Amino acid sequence: MPEDDDLPKSQQADAASEVGRRRLGSSQTTSLPVYHQLYTILRQQIQDGMFDRDQPLPPEMTLSKTYDVSRVTVRRALEMLERESLIVRRHGVGTFACPPGGEGGNERLAGLVENLITLGLDTTAKLIAFDAAAPVPSVAAAALNLKPGSPALRIERLRYYKSKPLSLTTLFLPAAFASRISEKELDDRPVMRILEATGIKAMRAEQTISAVAADDRAANRLSVGVGAPLIRLRRTVFDEAGQPFEHQQGLYNPDQYEYHMLLTRDNSSSRPQWRHIG
Amino acid sequence: MPEDDDLPKSQQADAASEVGRRRLGSSQTTSLPVYHQLYTILRQQIQDGMFDRDQPLPPEMTLSKTYDVSRVTVRRALEMLERESLIVRRHGVGTFACPPGGEGGNERLAGLVENLITLGLDTTAKLIAFDAAAPVPSVAAAALNLKPGSPALRIERLRYYKSKPLSLTTLFLPAAFASRISEKELDDRPVMRILEATGIKAMRAEQTISAVAADDRAANRLSVGVGAPLIRLRRTVFDEAGQPFEHQQGLYNPDQYEYHMLLTRDNSSSRPQWRHIG
Repeated sequence: MPEDDDLPKSQQADAASEVGRRRLGSSQTTSLPVYHQLYTILRQQIQDGMFDRDQPLPPEMTLSKTYDVSRVTVRRALEMLERESLIVRRHGVGTFACPPGGEGGNERLAGLVENLITLGLDTTAKLIAFDAAAPVPSVAAAALNLKPGSPALRIERLRYYKSKPLSLTTLFLPAAFASRISEKELDDRPVMRILEATGIKAMRAEQTISAVAADDRAANRLSVGVGAPLIRLRRTVFDEAGQPFEHQQGLYNPDQYEYHMLLTRDNSSSRPQWRHIG
Repeated sequence: MPEDDDLPKSQQADAASEVGRRRLGSSQTTSLPVYHQLYTILRQQIQDGMFDRDQPLPPEMTLSKTYDVSRVTVRRALEMLERESLIVRRHGVGTFACPPGGEGGNERLAGLVENLITLGLDTTAKLIAFDAAAPVPSVAAAALNLKPGSPALRIERLRYYKSKPLSLTTLFLPAAFASRISEKELDDRPVMRILEATGIKAMRAEQTISAVAADDRAANRLSVGVGAPLIRLRRTVFDEAGQPFEHQQGLYNPDQYEYHMLLTRDNSSSRPQWRHIG
């Protein structure tokens, strides 16, 4: 939840009392069925490790009151969570949370995946598509100074960590690169490392991180539900001459991965600012 | 879409042909109604600027065939998009995309919001909660070396940019800080700037970025639907002595904001790596 996202179970009452009873479906913008809204909320709480594993979830009646929904709605939401093995019902004891990623539920990879791999992280990459002359999409075209729709080398890969899908990455390179890299050279290394082995030199990159809803393809590839939140990382890589030569988009499953970084406070001016390091 | 996320409309056919017809609801993990799955997919495409504003969307029949769903389902999805003003129907002409954020649909803020504000970005902050003795949630407690549930200063604010909600931020500070900062001192500046004005010195921070589904509260505050993807930024700030003294969580609407950063390629070793700069 926003203001008590990781509030321990014992404190939920206090938090609830701040805003009183909650009414699902009251948002004007949402069109999600109420049972699915409750499922979404509880799922996020479980993934955020909000429920202690040794303490049962609030009983159906409490959830029904807290969210001002029927018992039937609560049951339907709990059934969805049970189907995803996010909760387990222990007869006569109660319903318990089983956050993904094992104990604690927060054992996610952190950092820049390419670096983790370079440092020996054991992941495998499965080639989804290798097209030497794919029509370059508008965003990638703009990044690479190409005409939208003109042919470019397109490589799409699905990366697994511990046999679970971690990320779905699509990169575009100017068509000329098709002569420098072939399908069979693609192993589990990051594509940039493979390119560097051929003499290409990357100098810098511009990157944006956002959150997107999984569409049907991403959902099936990453084993999440359609509409599930995914981390989207877009990057444009520049060479020594300052020319952009690679644009990629990566979609990451937040259950498996978080983007971690270090900041330092620049107090040199009268207006201190955060700067990225590491 | 994952492998053709920003593919121009003219190329959709090529992309579709790669994988043939798409079947919604085929994912075992999804429980989202089919019409809502299609709505989610089209919404993401519109937000990614995939549809030219001067060209109509594919006709209902085409969408029905492409996604292997009924015309009724297509209509229901389009109605949801129309209600959100993401599409507009022009009689006798067709249905057109209206990406949020004006022309292009990609006019998002980029960078580290606190820095943008420090540099003069015109935003306003609305205080949601100021609690001098709030029970500290587990994640914040762990970050601040406090006992979960022990009292801490909790400040929650909703930030607006051009009168649209941009972010919902919740910070926790050790209870002792309640004597250093009062409710009325909170203006539109970032809380850290306000604290620095009182003599506090921040040295560094650890930060993680993830994607989460909006729960009912975040949805209502940020004017998005329940379950909509949000960028989640968690940060722990350390003082000169290396002690953590602030933990915050920010939820950002990806329609309004993207996290932008610069990377440099460290080629000093035989294993080149990306490093954050700027």
